[in-house]
Amino acid sequence: MIAICDATERLATALGGGPAATLAASALIEADALELPRFGIAMLDEWTPALASAPRAEVSQAITWLDRSSCFAPLAVASATLDLAAAARQFGVAAVFLRGVRGFGRLAPFVRHLADAGLLGIAGAEGPPFVAPQGGTRPVIGTNPFAFAMGQGEDRVVIDVASSTATMAAIRNARASGASLPAGIAVDGSGQPTTAAADVAALLPRGGQIGSLLGLVVELMAGVAGGGRGDPAGRGVFIVALDPAAAEEHTDWRQRLAGLKNDWLEGGGHWPKGGTVSPDTVMSCDFGERLDAHLARLSEEMTTR
Amino acid sequence: MIAICDATERLATALGGGPAATLAASALIEADALELPRFGIAMLDEWTPALASAPRAEVSQAITWLDRSSCFAPLAVASATLDLAAAARQFGVAAVFLRGVRGFGRLAPFVRHLADAGLLGIAGAEGPPFVAPQGGTRPVIGTNPFAFAMGQGEDRVVIDVASSTATMAAIRNARASGASLPAGIAVDGSGQPTTAAADVAALLPRGGQIGSLLGLVVELMAGVAGGGRGDPAGRGVFIVALDPAAAEEHTDWRQRLAGLKNDWLEGGGHWPKGGTVSPDTVMSCDFGERLDAHLARLSEEMTTR
Repeated sequence: MIAICDATERLATALGGGPAATLAASALIEADALELPRFGIAMLDEWTPALASAPRAEVSQAITWLDRSSCFAPLAVASATLDLAAAARQFGVAAVFLRGVRGFGRLAPFVRHLADAGLLGIAGAEGPPFVAPQGGTRPVIGTNPFAFAMGQGEDRVVIDVASSTATMAAIRNARASGASLPAGIAVDGSGQPTTAAADVAALLPRGGQIGSLLGLVVELMAGVAGGGRGDPAGRGVFIVALDPAAAEEHTDWRQRLAGLKNDWLEGGGHWPKGGTVSPDTVMSCDFGERLDAHLARLSEEMTTR
Repeated sequence: MIAICDATERLATALGGGPAATLAASALIEADALELPRFGIAMLDEWTPALASAPRAEVSQAITWLDRSSCFAPLAVASATLDLAAAARQFGVAAVFLRGVRGFGRLAPFVRHLADAGLLGIAGAEGPPFVAPQGGTRPVIGTNPFAFAMGQGEDRVVIDVASSTATMAAIRNARASGASLPAGIAVDGSGQPTTAAADVAALLPRGGQIGSLLGLVVELMAGVAGGGRGDPAGRGVFIVALDPAAAEEHTDWRQRLAGLKNDWLEGGGHWPKGGTVSPDTVMSCDFGERLDAHLARLSEEMTTR
């Protein structure tokens, strides 16, 4: 058994050390702790020594576009997040568009890093077409997660929501097990709602029209403005950071955040925390064994490179 | 009868002329043309000579916070949009937070203006609490519209969506007429769904959880980061603009936008155009009379100031 903090330190070292490796390692391990193993250290399967490097950019402009098809994706997103934080402090607002990004896990840890740094973080990622537009019959966009974070400590808010209710992984699992799907999450080839996984031609947007529009916004940002759409090398990802410090005396934003959280809870809402886990959490033996195997491979491939 | 273009020119002149007055005038008149009179020239009721001025800011930073409680709101939003376009061209990305904004109409015309200028526009506005969080029972946030626009000509996309299905105006109308409400748009004081307008204590978020989260994001941006929440002088509004030109040779964004539009339509989706109307549209006689009355008042109050 291994605590999250120790696992993170070991993986960060194996990924080359430094802040980007630490952020990437903690993002992957957190996903396993949240029982989302598809977004966890399984991502290390894509790691190769040739992809290991993740160049840090010079912070000299507020907006940047980067092709990251030759980087290990979790390191590329972590590195871009750190550079973006520096750019946002310099300019007040900054944006980065990545393309050619392979599997990198969840967006939540990266926007949360920006929040912890005193910034607002907004991010989205497009991907292969699985989701139909509202009212439509064929898949056009990805499950396109959108994420937002701001604040620190107890008041911190971390939103990370996909634009579809289901994932293709869930459909594949249902297909394998023969289980039927919940109603209203997918359509068949003729555009009719279906609960038979074998008949699924497209996922439906979460919440109908508004989920469809949010998925479209993510596609327009990450896929169109960022150039990621249709790139066989990987996904498009955008991250925007804003620094609220300059106006703090006028906006009282920390106090307003605490007030909004209070109102939200009193109104019966759930304050989104984006799946944070304690660094003292102890991981399962199975996880420990999987991590050991990944680290052994990384070490071996780096040595024989 | 009067064509939209002539009406816009007359109103822009009455509002002091120049690009901000033209943008504000066209935004208001367009709302009347779209049969959304609550967002149209009815806004001129709030105009007074003391509020007439809308100072243009010096473009010297990428992020700005402005208290606009002493401005006529449509002019304040128009003026901020024009300044933001200049800042986005200079820095690549720029953001403005307005607070103390009274009724200004719809967001669509302002983000569309940014799209027509070759930029991406993103905006949101918070307001008085009418909408409950998902799963909640009491109103915490406003109907919080979110808007996005990019592209030009036929491919241009303009999204402008509120975070609730219904508006408080619709509830008031149903209350007055005794009509029952559609199911699923509102709850009563005990948090139960209701179709009786007289019993409505809160509106429900559009599409459930995802609409609730989008409304919360708008509140966090316009209300918390922008300082607008709870300000009795008016609403909080944010606008972000990004300039995709610097990376155009890598992203081919215009071609990707045309491709996405094509895929979206072929997949059965509706490409959002944000309610554009032709400048040749001829307005009703009733509108012409209302405009004349407003213009007469503006002229009289400016003269006797």
